[in-house]
Amino acid sequence: MVYFGHPRHECGVFAVYGHPEAARVTYFGLFALQHRGQESAGIVTTDGCDVREHKGMGLVSEVFKEEVLSKMKGHLAIGHVRYSTTGSSTLANAQPFVAHHGREYYGIAHNGNLVNALELRRHLEKRGSIFQSTMDTEIFIHLMALHLKEGLEGAIIKSFSQVSGAYSLVMLTKREIIAARDPFGFRPLSLGRINGGWVIASETCAFDLVQGEFIRDIEPGEILIIDENGVKNIGFLSSPRKAMCVFELIYFSRPDSNVFGRNVYSCRKELGFNLAEEYRPDVDLVMPFPDSGNYAALGFAQRSGIPFEMGMIRNHYVGRTFIQPTQSVRDFGVRVKLNPVLSLLKGKRIAIVEDSIIRGTTSQSRIKNLRERGIKEIHLLVSCPPTRFPCPYGIDFSSRGELIAARQERVEDIARFIGVDHLYYLSLDGMVKATGLKKSDLCLACYTGEYPIPLVQESDKFCLER
Amino acid sequence: MVYFGHPRHECGVFAVYGHPEAARVTYFGLFALQHRGQESAGIVTTDGCDVREHKGMGLVSEVFKEEVLSKMKGHLAIGHVRYSTTGSSTLANAQPFVAHHGREYYGIAHNGNLVNALELRRHLEKRGSIFQSTMDTEIFIHLMALHLKEGLEGAIIKSFSQVSGAYSLVMLTKREIIAARDPFGFRPLSLGRINGGWVIASETCAFDLVQGEFIRDIEPGEILIIDENGVKNIGFLSSPRKAMCVFELIYFSRPDSNVFGRNVYSCRKELGFNLAEEYRPDVDLVMPFPDSGNYAALGFAQRSGIPFEMGMIRNHYVGRTFIQPTQSVRDFGVRVKLNPVLSLLKGKRIAIVEDSIIRGTTSQSRIKNLRERGIKEIHLLVSCPPTRFPCPYGIDFSSRGELIAARQERVEDIARFIGVDHLYYLSLDGMVKATGLKKSDLCLACYTGEYPIPLVQESDKFCLER
Amino acid sequence: MVYFGHPRHECGVFAVYGHPEAARVTYFGLFALQHRGQESAGIVTTDGCDVREHKGMGLVSEVFKEEVLSKMKGHLAIGHVRYSTTGSSTLANAQPFVAHHGREYYGIAHNGNLVNALELRRHLEKRGSIFQSTMDTEIFIHLMALHLKEGLEGAIIKSFSQVSGAYSLVMLTKREIIAARDPFGFRPLSLGRINGGWVIASETCAFDLVQGEFIRDIEPGEILIIDENGVKNIGFLSSPRKAMCVFELIYFSRPDSNVFGRNVYSCRKELGFNLAEEYRPDVDLVMPFPDSGNYAALGFAQRSGIPFEMGMIRNHYVGRTFIQPTQSVRDFGVRVKLNPVLSLLKGKRIAIVEDSIIRGTTSQSRIKNLRERGIKEIHLLVSCPPTRFPCPYGIDFSSRGELIAARQERVEDIARFIGVDHLYYLSLDGMVKATGLKKSDLCLACYTGEYPIPLVQESDKFCLER
Amino acid sequence: MVYFGHPRHECGVFAVYGHPEAARVTYFGLFALQHRGQESAGIVTTDGCDVREHKGMGLVSEVFKEEVLSKMKGHLAIGHVRYSTTGSSTLANAQPFVAHHGREYYGIAHNGNLVNALELRRHLEKRGSIFQSTMDTEIFIHLMALHLKEGLEGAIIKSFSQVSGAYSLVMLTKREIIAARDPFGFRPLSLGRINGGWVIASETCAFDLVQGEFIRDIEPGEILIIDENGVKNIGFLSSPRKAMCVFELIYFSRPDSNVFGRNVYSCRKELGFNLAEEYRPDVDLVMPFPDSGNYAALGFAQRSGIPFEMGMIRNHYVGRTFIQPTQSVRDFGVRVKLNPVLSLLKGKRIAIVEDSIIRGTTSQSRIKNLRERGIKEIHLLVSCPPTRFPCPYGIDFSSRGELIAARQERVEDIARFIGVDHLYYLSLDGMVKATGLKKSDLCLACYTGEYPIPLVQESDKFCLER
Repeated sequence: MVYFGHPRHECGVFAVYGHPEAARVTYFGLFALQHRGQESAGIVTTDGCDVREHKGMGLVSEVFKEEVLSKMKGHLAIGHVRYSTTGSSTLANAQPFVAHHGREYYGIAHNGNLVNALELRRHLEKRGSIFQSTMDTEIFIHLMALHLKEGLEGAIIKSFSQVSGAYSLVMLTKREIIAARDPFGFRPLSLGRINGGWVIASETCAFDLVQGEFIRDIEPGEILIIDENGVKNIGFLSSPRKAMCVFELIYFSRPDSNVFGRNVYSCRKELGFNLAEEYRPDVDLVMPFPDSGNYAALGFAQRSGIPFEMGMIRNHYVGRTFIQPTQSVRDFGVRVKLNPVLSLLKGKRIAIVEDSIIRGTTSQSRIKNLRERGIKEIHLLVSCPPTRFPCPYGIDFSSRGELIAARQERVEDIARFIGVDHLYYLSLDGMVKATGLKKSDLCLACYTGEYPIPLVQESDKFCLER
Repeated sequence: MVYFGHPRHECGVFAVYGHPEAARVTYFGLFALQHRGQESAGIVTTDGCDVREHKGMGLVSEVFKEEVLSKMKGHLAIGHVRYSTTGSSTLANAQPFVAHHGREYYGIAHNGNLVNALELRRHLEKRGSIFQSTMDTEIFIHLMALHLKEGLEGAIIKSFSQVSGAYSLVMLTKREIIAARDPFGFRPLSLGRINGGWVIASETCAFDLVQGEFIRDIEPGEILIIDENGVKNIGFLSSPRKAMCVFELIYFSRPDSNVFGRNVYSCRKELGFNLAEEYRPDVDLVMPFPDSGNYAALGFAQRSGIPFEMGMIRNHYVGRTFIQPTQSVRDFGVRVKLNPVLSLLKGKRIAIVEDSIIRGTTSQSRIKNLRERGIKEIHLLVSCPPTRFPCPYGIDFSSRGELIAARQERVEDIARFIGVDHLYYLSLDGMVKATGLKKSDLCLACYTGEYPIPLVQESDKFCLER
Repeated sequence: MVYFGHPRHECGVFAVYGHPEAARVTYFGLFALQHRGQESAGIVTTDGCDVREHKGMGLVSEVFKEEVLSKMKGHLAIGHVRYSTTGSSTLANAQPFVAHHGREYYGIAHNGNLVNALELRRHLEKRGSIFQSTMDTEIFIHLMALHLKEGLEGAIIKSFSQVSGAYSLVMLTKREIIAARDPFGFRPLSLGRINGGWVIASETCAFDLVQGEFIRDIEPGEILIIDENGVKNIGFLSSPRKAMCVFELIYFSRPDSNVFGRNVYSCRKELGFNLAEEYRPDVDLVMPFPDSGNYAALGFAQRSGIPFEMGMIRNHYVGRTFIQPTQSVRDFGVRVKLNPVLSLLKGKRIAIVEDSIIRGTTSQSRIKNLRERGIKEIHLLVSCPPTRFPCPYGIDFSSRGELIAARQERVEDIARFIGVDHLYYLSLDGMVKATGLKKSDLCLACYTGEYPIPLVQESDKFCLER
Repeated sequence: MVYFGHPRHECGVFAVYGHPEAARVTYFGLFALQHRGQESAGIVTTDGCDVREHKGMGLVSEVFKEEVLSKMKGHLAIGHVRYSTTGSSTLANAQPFVAHHGREYYGIAHNGNLVNALELRRHLEKRGSIFQSTMDTEIFIHLMALHLKEGLEGAIIKSFSQVSGAYSLVMLTKREIIAARDPFGFRPLSLGRINGGWVIASETCAFDLVQGEFIRDIEPGEILIIDENGVKNIGFLSSPRKAMCVFELIYFSRPDSNVFGRNVYSCRKELGFNLAEEYRPDVDLVMPFPDSGNYAALGFAQRSGIPFEMGMIRNHYVGRTFIQPTQSVRDFGVRVKLNPVLSLLKGKRIAIVEDSIIRGTTSQSRIKNLRERGIKEIHLLVSCPPTRFPCPYGIDFSSRGELIAARQERVEDIARFIGVDHLYYLSLDGMVKATGLKKSDLCLACYTGEYPIPLVQESDKFCLER
């Protein structure tokens, strides 16, 4: 989903059809997708007559308590977790988005961004629609309400044909679950079985947790309706090409998921293999920053023969909030999370493998934390090319100005900014090869600037939205 | 506002135009209106560009904390408190109801019930509107969105002409406050000044608290727009008659308010005077159940010469929730709130004045509590006639079946149910005379069954709404 | 209990022996005593083997929730509510105070102040005792631990003989409940029966709520032990005189309680009768400030024939915390609680009856609130003499400097400070006569300065305690 | 500290002398020690006159909020985190334990268990002492109060000579910090500098976080007083031998700490080296269960040449509480935390390195989780010998009956219980050699049953304590 204007967000979606405890299964499914969004969580469930919804700010485990969940009866459910890096988030923008229409009830949970949201919204408002949120997700429901006279299937196809952008989404009515993936296939979406019913999830690791069985990926452009007659494909939306987000494989998805038909863990190890083929520094050891870069570092170590170490210790009890120290205690934010093992690192030449560098500031302060402890030489290896362009399809990249590789064109300058002796980025081909997918089926826009869907000018923002 | 289906609710509304701390003034105004609704509270404010809203379940003092209120900048604000006697209430139905439309933002706070809500909603849904709540209040906004092409004033008049029922409401846009009272004038609504700006409130006691100055009642059918040019009457909606709710004077409004041009305190004392004229039992003392019936009891004592006492002590610290006792402690609910003064009452013949009897169960358990302490004789005097018909215009009367005076036609039978020796209801004329208003300007439907607006059949309820 | 140093506090105590749900009965008992202290609440219960305690800051209904209470099994329990007018209160000073000693467990709940607390504490510390709190209540337990070799009864008598001051207290061991009232009898304490077991409470209104039966007052100096053999008097502590606190009758106790053998409601009406005998101004009406002065005002009206009115309306929903208004909304604190009925009071000459005036500032702002509304003439009648001396026995009177009647010796000057046209205090004899008790059995120190127990110099405060 | 009776607990302690924000530094220090105890946290601080304390149940980040911490002024502070595996924990048993004595104030934070606690407590109670808690920690303060007439230093030495068992503790008075380590040196305790002041911590990783400088370990039996004159050794307590807990190195301490003069990370890698020397199975890969066994697994892989993988993915967002699934979702507890990477492990022969096996049930369910995914062969390698005896010195080992290696003497039987094909425990000598310390300086009692301090019979438990 997208706010009109920035920021953009990642999300995770989940749905169940035909399980006697659909809300509870969804709760567990969202647990497995929590890495895709920690800001808000929500579930809508129905038993075919009554509909119950609950959403709140925070982690799934914080938003849902037993007394809430035990009241959410029903055999259909959808759920959503949402991520934002800014403070502007509110409950009003939490998902699933829900609406009444006649005797029907619609819930929708959406991962991705529409690119023609503003244009569609203006059109709808002129017809007399009022809006409850600033999310593009709401547009789907308004379009459907408009087209319902053509029946549910007709309304879905007509509505989805009007929107443009990235969406992997699930919808709920009192009788069916609808699942759809945009024709470019930017975000993943998979179908599975559970106890004779059906599950849909952003990533397959959610099936593992609920003991569901992976059946297949939902294809780009595919629209499914699941009801008492089973799963039915009601049509394919067409597009000139596929554009699966390579960043899902490099960073965003969980290593125990299969995404776009590829196992993420192996894919990341391959990134490390290819790094080792391209650049092999003379160092005493290689290590990741926990827990980013773990698997690429492992692959690099295996291929290069350089010893793998875990030279920074992660504090597992930091939690998400802690009191900021005052002047007398500096740089606490970094040190509280990661502490270097001094006796291992002091006086050594080391290689660090990172999965990606966005703004560069986190790497910078981590490196500073290491430098102060007397490391002799630091090589930073990144398992993808420089990230130079923002993403309009649902990954929360800062605007161009905040991307270090957009501000600094030369790798030496980025190295200087971050404070390392050497900085090496994996080549575009090295990255693509590691994914095992065809280059033309991937969205590589954040590295190349070649956007699969042309960008819309969003100059026209109004004062309400920030 | 009305849920589609039961139950119905009372509410209080407040609005400010042109005060630098509009949200804070609204907060205080809602404090004074808290007796009209304790279930949820909400405020929306704007500075002409940004809009901020906050609502929650509970009392005004619980919903609003300094950190919330201090961020609600703006010189326009509307607020709402809402009352429900059932547990089915949710945050989704809290008011003000708000919506985005183009670059505009609408908030609405409504006291009263529409009687053609379902019909209007069906019509709107057929045109493609989706609904966020089950409140009739939402309909106002949808109608306005539909008619906006005729300009704001046109849209208001066109929209309000379509709705039928009881409404005293305030609306907020980024530039103006709108206030309207339905043409029957069921619920009160008053206009005042504050620091060069304007205030609107359900009752005048709210003006006292914020040190505003009462100007005049908003007339039945009157629609006002307040903007930088001041207060403008944009038209009058017409109706065959007035129908001001007599129950506001008898029970619902605060005694320090002036409502429908009458002081509530004096009006209630007059009810007591008229009671004393009609029925004067031979008793040792007269007392109210605190704090209902206080003023009528005082009037009765003054006119009859029977000594006034405060024979039941109210526990001021009960709070709204406490743990229920188990079997070994019976009837705790009544005794925890009111305890009789034994040495005053034992062996006495007493008269108790109540403002009204609805279901009769509260009176019954209070009387039982007294009886157990050895009162000799109890006369119960009610300051209005038997309440025999439900109210479709915003007072939460139970359905007919729950009204004791509908179930039991003979007063002797009601007396037996409640457990008193004698029961006397004030006559209809005695009540009307005490109000000082013309009988034909009052809604007396709950006593007479003569409804100013014919009732709509709401047989057609669907399973979502309960 | 007393802090070493100021402030002093009022409290309520409750105990149960021999009821299967002793903690639950105590919970309800504390509800009825909540007016004696709203700052903290606590209960300790035992089934003879296990002991369970729970205490917290806030009202009884806030501190105890069903999940807590349902775990507090046992047939013995004691409870405490505590009051403080300052912010220095902490959970560490909440009662009951509890301690382990060998296989025994002691809990104590105390209403009153010791006057030789500091001296005793120093003595105990020299022997090696360590203290957990700054409450004098803790001293009882230390003394008992010291004397336990003489058996429980011996230890109690020896310990209580050493302390000097005001105490009505209840103690719990695993097998018995102990109740004691100091030999002067400053504070009330009553004994009752419940379901074959026993209850003890600061005031008899607590018996009404739990449906217990009042048996008798515990006498000044009396010490009771209640165990499986019933109630046993283990001795009387002697004193030169009785000194029952007159302020309990005038202000502190609930009107539906019997205290010191007198019904509080009648006693307050008598105060009003005597006021009317002494001073009868030429006014249009008499009214109380709700809810202080209610009963004296009623008595005054009945005796004088001046009409009784309820001219200020109390807002029942204020709660204990609300956001302070800023500059633009003045004197909110008073007006939010009490609003005058303008149409009743405007242009009138009125008499107001108050139960007492301590610092005078509350009266002052209430009067100001009335004056601004155009009252013609205000007579303030107080149902006791000027309060000129602080109380060292457990009533939270400000230090002498804060008592308006200590600062201003002439009644005219107090009248001017408060802003009334005339101020009249009931005479000492008028007050004593209304209590129906012997003057020599009452503590009148706050009016006369004659302290039943000579004051101890507390100059010697140390920095920890504030 | 020890409860009288089971269970036993681990803890972490921290102290600061001479830093203007002592409480804040302690807060950060406790963050770094959070792995030693997550049940409760507390800090006491003083500026030499006032003392402020705060403690609560939960993590440091939950117990302390800015508004609390910012009020805790002072340049001396001590802090404590506590761990319990049972639900019987209460706030009354949270540390630091504090007490008033005369004008002085004592706070104490303690890691370890006394073995003569019950005996000392009985003795103190006979003298008249009363106890607030069931913690042995309280005994230190009572002993000191008793001996204070000999001056602070005399009282400390006399008191500490009376206690027997494991203790690394810090105390605070209004003027000094006291630090002591029992003469066996069971638990670690280190001294450091910060900004001209002093810090003391259970582990050196806490110095890293607050940017303090490690100076030296506090020696077994050493007692330090830190005041305005600096650090002063006031004596050494003697013992027949040292007995440093080997489990601190194997499992309990953080890998980035130096404990007993040894770096924990290197020590754990050496355990893996020695494992590889003793047992080298024919497998495809070696992996740890995250995050136990990480470093030993790494050492094993480096020495054996078997590829290191991270075959189970940890869910970082589980939190400490989540709703239990019902019947239809089995074994959720394990799977929600760790999910195997199927495509990596399926059909493989694998070695897993664990740091220790206590009850065996966690390993059992993790292995089951793996087995269900089709692993071909599992070798479980443990980096210490079988844990056959409970620990009375502060590690929460279950009673003998719950230790799998006490119940099952033969390793094959343990392997069968856990469900692995092969199970190998590191030899005692292999473990000792890896620590780099003298065997005779280590406590190995949980492996050998040879207790450095003879066990006291605790048969004599009373009903209060469970």
